[in-house]
Amino acid sequence: MNRTRLEAFSDGVLAIIITIMVLEIKVPHGSDFTAMKPLVPVVISYILSFIYIGIYWNNHHHMMHTVKHVSGGILWANLHLLFWLSLVPFTTGWIGENHFAPVPMSVYGFVLLMAAIAYFILQTTIIRAQGERSLLARAVGNDIKGKMSPILYLLGIGSNFISQWISGGLYVLVALIWLIPDKRIEIILRSESETKNSKK
Amino acid sequence: MNRTRLEAFSDGVLAIIITIMVLEIKVPHGSDFTAMKPLVPVVISYILSFIYIGIYWNNHHHMMHTVKHVSGGILWANLHLLFWLSLVPFTTGWIGENHFAPVPMSVYGFVLLMAAIAYFILQTTIIRAQGERSLLARAVGNDIKGKMSPILYLLGIGSNFISQWISGGLYVLVALIWLIPDKRIEIILRSESETKNSKK
Amino acid sequence: MNRTRLEAFSDGVLAIIITIMVLEIKVPHGSDFTAMKPLVPVVISYILSFIYIGIYWNNHHHMMHTVKHVSGGILWANLHLLFWLSLVPFTTGWIGENHFAPVPMSVYGFVLLMAAIAYFILQTTIIRAQGERSLLARAVGNDIKGKMSPILYLLGIGSNFISQWISGGLYVLVALIWLIPDKRIEIILRSESETKNSKK
Amino acid sequence: MNRTRLEAFSDGVLAIIITIMVLEIKVPHGSDFTAMKPLVPVVISYILSFIYIGIYWNNHHHMMHTVKHVSGGILWANLHLLFWLSLVPFTTGWIGENHFAPVPMSVYGFVLLMAAIAYFILQTTIIRAQGERSLLARAVGNDIKGKMSPILYLLGIGSNFISQWISGGLYVLVALIWLIPDKRIEIILRSESETKNSKK
Repeated sequence: MNRTRLEAFSDGVLAIIITIMVLEIKVPHGSDFTAMKPLVPVVISYILSFIYIGIYWNNHHHMMHTVKHVSGGILWANLHLLFWLSLVPFTTGWIGENHFAPVPMSVYGFVLLMAAIAYFILQTTIIRAQGERSLLARAVGNDIKGKMSPILYLLGIGSNFISQWISGGLYVLVALIWLIPDKRIEIILRSESETKNSKK
Repeated sequence: MNRTRLEAFSDGVLAIIITIMVLEIKVPHGSDFTAMKPLVPVVISYILSFIYIGIYWNNHHHMMHTVKHVSGGILWANLHLLFWLSLVPFTTGWIGENHFAPVPMSVYGFVLLMAAIAYFILQTTIIRAQGERSLLARAVGNDIKGKMSPILYLLGIGSNFISQWISGGLYVLVALIWLIPDKRIEIILRSESETKNSKK
Repeated sequence: MNRTRLEAFSDGVLAIIITIMVLEIKVPHGSDFTAMKPLVPVVISYILSFIYIGIYWNNHHHMMHTVKHVSGGILWANLHLLFWLSLVPFTTGWIGENHFAPVPMSVYGFVLLMAAIAYFILQTTIIRAQGERSLLARAVGNDIKGKMSPILYLLGIGSNFISQWISGGLYVLVALIWLIPDKRIEIILRSESETKNSKK
Repeated sequence: MNRTRLEAFSDGVLAIIITIMVLEIKVPHGSDFTAMKPLVPVVISYILSFIYIGIYWNNHHHMMHTVKHVSGGILWANLHLLFWLSLVPFTTGWIGENHFAPVPMSVYGFVLLMAAIAYFILQTTIIRAQGERSLLARAVGNDIKGKMSPILYLLGIGSNFISQWISGGLYVLVALIWLIPDKRIEIILRSESETKNSKK
C-alpha cells in the first residue's frame, strides 16, 4: 500500500548520503601532483563507504520487496537505520582527514556496528509483522552474514589499539563478504512465484 | 491525480533536510577522544531534529493519504510547511555549536512553532477542500496533540530565559508525544475501507 | 511514456535547489540576538528565492501535465531551465551576504531573466511538438505573465544603479504576479476532460 | 520488475551530483564586478560538467528502457558508474579554482575516462543479460561514439602537458559529439513497437 513512499524516501536519503560524502573531498588549493597526496586517504575512505552504502541500498531493496504492509514499527525501524547510515559521511571524513588514526577508525567501526544492529532490528520487525510463514524469514535463513558482521566490527573496533591496519582490513573484509551476491532472497522469491504460477 | 508528484517533491525535500543536517557535524581536526567532546551537543541536537523531521514525514504521509485532488491552496500550504522545516538544519546547527544557549534555543523553538502552525494550516486547507464529510476531519478528531504542541513550544521558548534545560525538556516532550504511534488516521482509514467492502 | 522520469529528475533537482539554499544561512558563532542581525538580509533573500523556486516547480508541474511524448528537444530545454535555476542558490547567497548591493542584485535579476527565457523556450518546444491543436498553447493563451516578467526583470536589473530598493521591489512584484493562482491550464484541462466525458 | 527503483536511485544520485556542483561556486565577499572575475573559470567548468552529467542522465535513461530484469551484475555496474560520476563535482571545482591548470585538467579527464569505461561495462553487462537477440545491442550498433570518447579523453589527458587549451577543447568536443541527438535507441525502440503492433 504505502511501501512505495517508504522506498522512495529511503532511496532519497541513501542517494544523498552517498553523494554528499564527496563534499568531504575538499578541492586542494595547489594544482600539481603533490597537492593530491593528502587526498589519497580521503579517496580510499570514500571508496570504502561508497561500497558500504551501496550494499545497504541493495539489501534494503531486496528486503523491502517482501514487505506488503508498512506498520509504524517498520517505519521507525527504517528511520533508525537511516539515522546511523547518515553518520557515515561524517565518520568517513574523519578517518580520511586523520590518515586512519585509531580513535576515528573506532568511531567509524562503531557507526557501522550500530547500522548493522539497526538493520537486524528492521529485519526482525518485518519478520514479526509477516507472521509465522514469513517470506523474509525463509529468505534470510540462518543469516550467517548478518551474525558475522557485528563480531567482525567489534574485532575491528578493538584491534585499532593494536594496529589500525588490522582494523581497516576487517572493515574491508565485511564489505567483501556482503559484495558476494546474496542470492538467498532472490532465489526464494523466484521459487515462490514459480509455485504460484504452477498452481494456476 | 497529481498527489503523487506533490508527495515525491515533499519526500525529496524532507530527505534532503534530514540528511544535510549531518553536514553541521563538522569533521574535527584532532584524532583523539578529546576531539569528540565539542561534538556531543551537536550530535544531541542532530538526534532531536532527526526525530522531529521523521515525525513530520510520517504524519505528512498519513495526511496526504486522505487527499484526492491537490488544489493550489494545498500546494502552497505544503510549500509553506516545507519552508519552516527547511530552517531546522540551521537552528539545529546553531544550538549545537552554542551548547544550547538561550537565544538559539528560543529560535529553535520558534521555528518548530511555525512549522506546527504551518502543519495546522495545511490540515485545515485539506479538510476544507474535502468538504463536510471530510475523511481527514474525522481522522484528526479533536486533535489534542496538534493543539498541545504549540502551547508546549511557547512554554519552551519562554522558559529559556529561566533555564534552557527546562526548554530542552519541553522540546523533547513534544517529540515523545508524537512518537507514540498515532493510530487515529490509520484506524479511520481501515474502518472506512471495511465499510466499503461490506456494502459490496 | 518517459515523462514520469523527466518529472522525477526535475523534482529531484528542484527539491535540492530549494533545500541547499539554506546552507547559505551560515550558523553564527555568537549566541545572542545581535548575532542574528547579519542574518536578516540572508533570510529575506532566502524567502524570496524559496517562493521563486516554488512558483517554478508549480508551473513546471502544470506544464508537464500536457506533455505526452518527451522528445530530445524537450529534454534539453528542460535541462537548460534547470541550469539557470541551479544558479539561484549562488545569487541568493551573494545578495544576502552583501545587503542587496547593486552588482549582486543585478546578477540575481539576470539569472531570473535567463530562467524566464529558458522557461519560455521549454514552453515553445512543447507547443511545437504538440502540433497545431496544442493543449498547452490554448492553456497559455496570450501569456501576459510570461511576457511581462522579462520586462520587469530588465527594469529591475537597470534600476539597481539608481536604487536597489526599486530593483528588489520589482523582483518581489514578479513573484506576486505569479503567486496569484494561475487557473488557465487547470481550467482548460478540466473543460477538456469534461468534453471527453460528454462525448462518451 | 525492480527497474523502477534502480532508475529512481540513479536519478536521485545524478540530480544531487548536478546540483551540489553549484556549491563549488563560492559566494564572493566583494560586491562589485571585479569580485566576479575569479568566478569566470568556475562557471565555465560548471557549465561543461553540467552538460556532461545531463548527457549521462539522458543516455542512462534510454539504456535502462531496454532493461527488463535487473540482475546483481547490472546493479553493481550501475553503482560503479555513479561512483565515477560522483567525483565530477570535485574535479570540476578543482579545475575551476586553478584556472584549468594541467594537473587538475588531467585528473578531470581521467575521471571522465573512467566514467566512460564504467558506462561501457554497464552497457556490456546489460547486453550479455539480454542474450543473443539483445534489443540494446542492436540499438547501440557499432557504437562509434562510445569507442571514440575514451580515445579523445586519453588525447585530452596527454595534451595537457603541451597546452591545457587543446585538452579543454577535446573535452568540449566529446560533449558536442554526444549532444547531437542520439536517435539510434529511439528509432530501434519505435520500429520494435511498430513490428509488434503490425503483428497484432
